[in-house]
Amino acid sequence: MKELLSQKVLQLKPSGIRKFFDVANEIPGVISLGVGEPDFATPYHIREAGIRAMQSGKTFYTANSGLCNLREEICNYTERRIGLTYNPNNEILVTVGGSEAIDIALRTMINPGDEILYIEPSFVSYLPCIVMADGIPVPIELKAENQFRLTGKQLEDVITQHSKVLILSYPNNPTGAIMEKSDLMELAEVIKKHNLLVISDEIYSELTYGREHVSIASLPGMKDRTILINGFSKNFAMTGWRLGYVFAHKEIMEQMTKVHQYVIMCAPTVSQYAAIEAMKNGEQDAAYMRESYNQRRRYLYHELNRLGLPCFEPEGAFYMFPDIREFGMSSEEFAMDLLDQEKVAVVPGNAFGESGEGFIRISYAYSIDELKEAFMRIERYLRKKREAGNDIKRNRLLAYTTKTNITKI
Amino acid sequence: MKELLSQKVLQLKPSGIRKFFDVANEIPGVISLGVGEPDFATPYHIREAGIRAMQSGKTFYTANSGLCNLREEICNYTERRIGLTYNPNNEILVTVGGSEAIDIALRTMINPGDEILYIEPSFVSYLPCIVMADGIPVPIELKAENQFRLTGKQLEDVITQHSKVLILSYPNNPTGAIMEKSDLMELAEVIKKHNLLVISDEIYSELTYGREHVSIASLPGMKDRTILINGFSKNFAMTGWRLGYVFAHKEIMEQMTKVHQYVIMCAPTVSQYAAIEAMKNGEQDAAYMRESYNQRRRYLYHELNRLGLPCFEPEGAFYMFPDIREFGMSSEEFAMDLLDQEKVAVVPGNAFGESGEGFIRISYAYSIDELKEAFMRIERYLRKKREAGNDIKRNRLLAYTTKTNITKI
Repeated sequence: MKELLSQKVLQLKPSGIRKFFDVANEIPGVISLGVGEPDFATPYHIREAGIRAMQSGKTFYTANSGLCNLREEICNYTERRIGLTYNPNNEILVTVGGSEAIDIALRTMINPGDEILYIEPSFVSYLPCIVMADGIPVPIELKAENQFRLTGKQLEDVITQHSKVLILSYPNNPTGAIMEKSDLMELAEVIKKHNLLVISDEIYSELTYGREHVSIASLPGMKDRTILINGFSKNFAMTGWRLGYVFAHKEIMEQMTKVHQYVIMCAPTVSQYAAIEAMKNGEQDAAYMRESYNQRRRYLYHELNRLGLPCFEPEGAFYMFPDIREFGMSSEEFAMDLLDQEKVAVVPGNAFGESGEGFIRISYAYSIDELKEAFMRIERYLRKKREAGNDIKRNRLLAYTTKTNITKI
Repeated sequence: MKELLSQKVLQLKPSGIRKFFDVANEIPGVISLGVGEPDFATPYHIREAGIRAMQSGKTFYTANSGLCNLREEICNYTERRIGLTYNPNNEILVTVGGSEAIDIALRTMINPGDEILYIEPSFVSYLPCIVMADGIPVPIELKAENQFRLTGKQLEDVITQHSKVLILSYPNNPTGAIMEKSDLMELAEVIKKHNLLVISDEIYSELTYGREHVSIASLPGMKDRTILINGFSKNFAMTGWRLGYVFAHKEIMEQMTKVHQYVIMCAPTVSQYAAIEAMKNGEQDAAYMRESYNQRRRYLYHELNRLGLPCFEPEGAFYMFPDIREFGMSSEEFAMDLLDQEKVAVVPGNAFGESGEGFIRISYAYSIDELKEAFMRIERYLRKKREAGNDIKRNRLLAYTTKTNITKI
C-alpha cells in the first residue's frame, strides 16, 4: 500500500512534539511543560459571543474570506495595534488557524525549485509545508549567542538566485526570541535588495515582555512584499476555535483566496462571531494574560539560572529554550530520560529542526504551582545527573590513574 | 507580482458558483436557489451540546485526529448506518469539513503524473485539488440518459497504466444522481481489475429518497482501497461548524494524519463536541430533514415537468439538474439572463465541469414558499423565451420564404 502513496508525504517525519507526547500521555503522574498552548480557557465574554451566535442559529457557511464584519474588525485592530492599514475587502482572509494560513500562503507562492528560506529552530509546520508545495527548504540556523535573532549577514549568506520567500516567526516558538525594530530594519534592507517575499508568522504578537511587538510589514517598502499571518489561538487563548487570518497584497490575496475556497471553504462560523468580540473587547484579556505569562517567565528564568542551565532570557511567546549540552545527551535522550526518571515532559529541541539539538523547549503556559512542582523535579534530576557525571569523571580518573599505573608496571 | 506566484494556482479558475453569486448578491429582491447548503439551522440539541462545551471551557486543541470519544461515536454511527466497521484509533480522522478531507486525501495519494479519474459534472473542488497535488485530472463525462451514473464501461474506457485514483461522489452534487448497489458492483469489478484506489465522497449519504444509501466501501474487497469521506454539513445541517471525517486503511491514514497535523492541527473543538451529540442522537433530525427535502423534491420535479424542462428525477442530495439546451444559450448566459430578467439565481451547469454545459443546478434546500415564488418567475421567464423563440422562428421562416421568393424571382 505504502509504495503507492505520495513520496513527498512519506518522507515527512511526524511532528517530534506529538511523537513525544503520545509516550508522555501514557504515563500516570506526568507534569507536562510541553504543549504550545495557553493554559487559560477563552475569556468568558468571547465564549458568550459564540454562545449567542449558536443560540441565534448562526450555523451556516460564511463568505469564503470570512464574515465581512470580522474582517473589518481585524483590520481595525491591526491598525490600532501595529499601525498597518489593510483593505477588509481584498487584503485579508480569515483562515483555520495560523496553520492553514502558512500552508495556503506557501502553496500560493511556490513554483517547483523555488528556495524558501526559514529560520531554525522554528515551528514544526514550515518545513513540511514547504516540501509539500515543492519548494526547496533552506534553513537558516539561529544562534543562542545572537539571542536567536536573524541577522542581515546570515540572511545574505544563504541567498541565491533561486531564493524567493523568507519565513520569519517572531516572537519565536520555540526560543522565545523577538526581533527589535533595528534588527528588522537591517533584515529589510537585504530582503529588498534581493527582492524576496516574506511570510511573517506573528501568531505570538501580543506576547512580548517589556517591548512592543514590531511587524516587519510596517517597515518602509515591506508591506506589499509581506504576507502577514496572525490569529486568535495564542493571543486570546482560542486554540480550539481554529481561527487565524492573513494579510497580503491584493494580487497575492486573490490567489490565496482561491486555494482557501477549494480546500477549506470558510473558517468555522461560530468562531468568527466570537472573534469579532475578541477584536472589539479583548485587548484587556490579552494584557492580563501577558502579565500573567510574564510573572511565570521571570520565575522560570530565575529558576533556570539557579539550576545553572544556560538559557538566554526570552522576551516573547511563552517558551524557554535552555541549553542541555553539558549532559552529553541528545535532546531526545535528555527529554526521554527526564520523563522516565522524574515524570516531567518537555520537548526535545530537535523537534524544531536540527539546529535545536542540544536544547529543550519548556513552555511556561502552566500555573505557578505546576511550574514549581516541575522545577523541583527537574532540580532533583539535574543534581542526580551531575553527581553521576562527577562519579563517572572520578571513575574515569581512577581508571586512568590505575591504567597509567599498570602501564607503568 | 502575479508572475512570481504558483503557476498551478494561477491557472485555477475561481469557483463558478461564487463568481455568479457575487453578482447575484448585489441585486435586491433576488431569490436564490443557488447555494449548496441546507436551509435548516443546526438542530437545537446539537447546538446545545456546543454551548455546553463552551460554557465548560472546552476551548483547547484536541488530539490531531479528533476527540477520541467523537471518533468512537462516528465509527458506531457508520457501523449502524452502512454496516462498515472501522478502528477509531487508526482508521479515522476528523477534518475541517469534507473539503479538507478531499484535499489531504489527494495530497497523500498523488505522485506527479498519476492520473486521477473523476466523474463530471461534480463538486467544484475535485479538479483544483487534483491539479494542486500534481495529479493529471481525467474527467469522465456522465450522461443524463444514464441518470448521471457511472458505468463500468465508461470507467474501463478511460483507464491507462497511469490511472491511480477514482473519485466518486454519490449522492451527487450537482445532479442529484445516486448509484444503486448493482451499479457499484459493476464498477467495483473494474476498480479491482485495474487495482485503482477510490476516494468516495459520500457527504450527502443521509439524503437519498426511496432507497438506502450504499457505500462502495461496503462491497467485497473494496474497503481497503477506498478512502471514505463524510461529514456533518449536509446530513445534519452543520455547514458552518466545518466538520467532516475520513476513513481509510491505517497505512493511508497514517500518512493523511501527518498532512492534517501540519496543515490544520485539529478540527474545531466545540464543533467536535456538538458532533458527538449529532452522532448519538441526531438520526431523527436527519430523517426529518430528509422527509422535508423529499416533499420539495417531488414538488420541484412536478414543476419542472409541467414547465417542460427536461430533467431526470434525482434520488439524492438536494439538487435538480434540468436541461436548458432548447433555448440555445450557454448555461452561463441562461443563468445570467434569468437573474437579470426575473431575479432568480441558479447555478450554471458548467460551474461543475464542461460536461455540465447545457444544464443548470437548482437547489431545493429552500422553503416551499420560496420555491413557489421562484418557479412562478421561472415559468414567466420560460414563456417569454419560448414566445421570443417562436417569434424568431416565425421571422426566420418569413425571411426564408421571402428569400426563397426573391430567389425564385
